[in-house]
Amino acid sequence: MRIAIDAMGGDNAPGLIVKGVLEAAHEWPDTELVLVGDTAVIEQLMGGNKPANISLCHADEVIGPDEEPVKAVRRKKGASMVVAGQLVREKRADAMLSAGNTGALMTTGLLVVGRLDGIERPALAPMLPTMDDVGMLALDLGANMDAKPEHLLQYAIMGSIYRSKVHGMDKPRIGLLNVGTEARKGNELTKAAYDLLEQAPIHFIGNVEARDVLSRSCDVLICDGFAGNIMLKAMEGTAGTLFGFIKDAFGESLLTKLAAAIMLPKLRKLKNKMDYKEYGSAPLLGLNGLVMKCHGSSDEVAVKSAIRQARIAIQGKLTESIAAEISGK
Amino acid sequence: MRIAIDAMGGDNAPGLIVKGVLEAAHEWPDTELVLVGDTAVIEQLMGGNKPANISLCHADEVIGPDEEPVKAVRRKKGASMVVAGQLVREKRADAMLSAGNTGALMTTGLLVVGRLDGIERPALAPMLPTMDDVGMLALDLGANMDAKPEHLLQYAIMGSIYRSKVHGMDKPRIGLLNVGTEARKGNELTKAAYDLLEQAPIHFIGNVEARDVLSRSCDVLICDGFAGNIMLKAMEGTAGTLFGFIKDAFGESLLTKLAAAIMLPKLRKLKNKMDYKEYGSAPLLGLNGLVMKCHGSSDEVAVKSAIRQARIAIQGKLTESIAAEISGK
Repeated sequence: MRIAIDAMGGDNAPGLIVKGVLEAAHEWPDTELVLVGDTAVIEQLMGGNKPANISLCHADEVIGPDEEPVKAVRRKKGASMVVAGQLVREKRADAMLSAGNTGALMTTGLLVVGRLDGIERPALAPMLPTMDDVGMLALDLGANMDAKPEHLLQYAIMGSIYRSKVHGMDKPRIGLLNVGTEARKGNELTKAAYDLLEQAPIHFIGNVEARDVLSRSCDVLICDGFAGNIMLKAMEGTAGTLFGFIKDAFGESLLTKLAAAIMLPKLRKLKNKMDYKEYGSAPLLGLNGLVMKCHGSSDEVAVKSAIRQARIAIQGKLTESIAAEISGK
Repeated sequence: MRIAIDAMGGDNAPGLIVKGVLEAAHEWPDTELVLVGDTAVIEQLMGGNKPANISLCHADEVIGPDEEPVKAVRRKKGASMVVAGQLVREKRADAMLSAGNTGALMTTGLLVVGRLDGIERPALAPMLPTMDDVGMLALDLGANMDAKPEHLLQYAIMGSIYRSKVHGMDKPRIGLLNVGTEARKGNELTKAAYDLLEQAPIHFIGNVEARDVLSRSCDVLICDGFAGNIMLKAMEGTAGTLFGFIKDAFGESLLTKLAAAIMLPKLRKLKNKMDYKEYGSAPLLGLNGLVMKCHGSSDEVAVKSAIRQARIAIQGKLTESIAAEISGK
């Protein structure tokens, strides 16, 4: 199998991206890793230490984190992210990874890699934090703002397949984000989606509420991009504000500093639990090949972990399974 | 002025409701308070101590907390909540309060009190907690699941008037809940609403994100009921889960119990900040008279505080101001 890596995207590119790929190359000698980017820079970073299963593919442009996605992907045909996408499109790679501009990666997926037949809207599926550290796959959290019930149905099918193929889950529980757990709750979108999900070849457990995400009330959370994004930011904002208040309170006096010394390791553990960066990279599902989004702040450990995930997905024939399930309807 | 109080609704009815009304009657002798409910029970609770500005209005039924709202309001014409609504409809009271079934109260507002001319959807406007203890008025948080841009415009106008009339705010900042702060962000609903809000006679400050609610990035938050409810429950769930974790961590050993003793007063303060019950009752805006929803767990202090709010709203001619602004368009 062959995996293309955008060497130039992300806060720590290209240094830690290349480092992570080198480590992955040693761990999995059966996997061919293609580093896409400025070959002169990459070669210098590797210092003559190029394992046989690493190859380079030159790309002389980079898409910056603040560039307008569609414009950037259309204009910069020679950007590392776009070139990596072309390798997947031309079946010269089974998967690509990037820690670069999320919007541009979604656009690369859509315009360069291309959708699977029958998929209307590919979806980015990151993991939401849960207190048991297992995490909840969520789609969509902001890619498609105006989803139709059929889109939510496809998200559910793709999420279910991903969770069983890549995370080894037997019968992942699919939940629909809603304002109550009863069947007839919600807006027109969720009511119609509910009916579709009940008929789908998945383990649909019904509506779930935003307050139960952290206790992992389901394994795959289905929502439209608008509501999902509002939920994610409400959780982040609340956790961030509470941690900030507690931190200030710990600094108030000698006594509170003593309390801080006792409690800090536990609070750090809690903070890590709440940090969705700890839960790995996010697949872009519904494309004609695997595209993985690594966090912008990915280091070598995150890159290696993303490559591990991509290997499992390729071995499990993730894309083929999604294609079969979707075209089967 | 005259205010009708549903004596039979809420967890602490009728005991603490009657107690709160007695205290309010002493504090504001100029205000006539009408206790609606089982007069025999109410008289017994008052023990012959009935101030001149309290009158009783008999109602022999009660709507329970779990009754289906529309059915209950239609069938129980003699329920205390419905009778209080009729007093407002017939202009025999300027306002009504209830701590009973929220859905039934909304239905009473819609079917018994009636909408103001030109208002399409009345909205319940509770306060969201903020770290500065001022609170953020939010509408709608779950009453209307499928809002149109014009509904959001009306929410904004009503919320702005309420905040200035009742909370004495000069130029309350109106924000639109969205997935980013830039102008063109969001779904079809928020994009269309944004354009309407820009033209409205309010101090519209643009899009605000769910993560900035606790820092009070605006004074009135405008959202559709679905997204608003998801946001509210995500905030509640995150805060609840984090407090639970911290509580458990404090109980782990003798040392952590020491830390708990030091930190508990501060954490209790934080918990109170996050408790939206601390932020008073919620008006139902857009009706032909004032309807206030008190929390189900309201005690005598909450009832008295709701009566105080209702007095200010009546003195400030809240309903008339909303009617004038809405019919003026």
